[in-house]
Amino acid sequence: MIIGFIGFGKVSQNLAKLIQSDDIAIVTSKENRSQKTIERIERSNVEVLDSFKEVAGKSDLLISANSPKTALSVAKEYGKYAKGVYLDLNNVSPDTTLQINEHVNQLVDGAIIGKIDSQNPVLYLSGEDANELAFLNDYIETKILSDRIGDASLLKLLRSTYTKTLSAVLIESSCLARKHGLEEEFFDVLELTEGNDFREKSASRINNTINSKKRKSEELQEILEYFDDDELDMVRAAFEKLNR
Amino acid sequence: MIIGFIGFGKVSQNLAKLIQSDDIAIVTSKENRSQKTIERIERSNVEVLDSFKEVAGKSDLLISANSPKTALSVAKEYGKYAKGVYLDLNNVSPDTTLQINEHVNQLVDGAIIGKIDSQNPVLYLSGEDANELAFLNDYIETKILSDRIGDASLLKLLRSTYTKTLSAVLIESSCLARKHGLEEEFFDVLELTEGNDFREKSASRINNTINSKKRKSEELQEILEYFDDDELDMVRAAFEKLNR
Repeated sequence: MIIGFIGFGKVSQNLAKLIQSDDIAIVTSKENRSQKTIERIERSNVEVLDSFKEVAGKSDLLISANSPKTALSVAKEYGKYAKGVYLDLNNVSPDTTLQINEHVNQLVDGAIIGKIDSQNPVLYLSGEDANELAFLNDYIETKILSDRIGDASLLKLLRSTYTKTLSAVLIESSCLARKHGLEEEFFDVLELTEGNDFREKSASRINNTINSKKRKSEELQEILEYFDDDELDMVRAAFEKLNR
Repeated sequence: MIIGFIGFGKVSQNLAKLIQSDDIAIVTSKENRSQKTIERIERSNVEVLDSFKEVAGKSDLLISANSPKTALSVAKEYGKYAKGVYLDLNNVSPDTTLQINEHVNQLVDGAIIGKIDSQNPVLYLSGEDANELAFLNDYIETKILSDRIGDASLLKLLRSTYTKTLSAVLIESSCLARKHGLEEEFFDVLELTEGNDFREKSASRINNTINSKKRKSEELQEILEYFDDDELDMVRAAFEKLNR
């Protein structure tokens, strides 16, 4: 079986590593790639074809793991050449996934939950052809959600709704504790009920959010726009907080 | 040593059970108590005195664990009779604790974190006389925060700022997932990164909040009023959410 990657960022690289086996040949291309990506390809054990058109035409499974912004244009350009299933792993909204579906024959909507290079990433899949990818479970824990394109993206977005709003809560309450001279004690006290890793996990969430405040705020805006739901008080407040 | 309780609600009952030992006599009174409390006293292994004035006068340590509303009036009435340290365990704001301090000679500000009848409740203490209560660590994990009256109450309030706002986030994001037909999957996905007990813990937080919406909303209002801080976007949103 041949699995092809359009784009070879960190997600592709790690996924390629996970699914490497005697039965699977992995292909990609250096066509129009950055120097950094070319080096990443060279460090990986993958076959390099001349063009992504060729990658699409030869692959039994074509995987698009690019940036949210390029996901649709990649599908428009290469979807039509895909020989088999086209798995979109981009972090896009369910709306964009539906648009992608118009340019691809056998689309499967995919979302990786957890960091791909962590111990236990899980791949969620949805769409009528998702069952064809059940074999991926041999390489990465794979769960099939439903036969509806958009459900995997939706689930990832719902997850984000929680995690991104939680980060804003953490920023607010730990700042308040700091202002009142009890930040250390605040984390001590919460570790008692929230688990021993609360301090460390919270610090990483707070730093991640503050270090990419603009992007996080854009993502919150996308959530608000996608759901268009008056009851999202907490998401709206998190968005406003990051825009202070 | 004699330890006296003013009020004998569930917190007092459980605390009395924890500190019961050969060296400690526990006293309280049935004076003006409800039938329920009188039955609770009779089920407990405590000595019953005729009045709380007598309890205060005989106790080396006097513990007030009543309702937030009665904390100040209890201190006004019995603080002056306290022979030794007066430990206030009521869930009151630092402001109220400072007011209580005006009616009590040797006040220690205390806050129990975690449920008193759980496996690991922790008693936080603050105030100049807090060190006198270090012996309590033999019966319940006891931490001395600082010599400032108000710090234990403040820490509990800061903790609430996080937990109560988090509950609002959980209500919002799980409702949204339910609306979109992915509530089960939403909890599945979050268990991957938030720990195996995420579903159960969240359900209990959501139910607690919804079942006592009015009280939780009042507590959020108290937080907003006490801190009087423009940057509490998330707490304010949680308050508004509960008042929808």
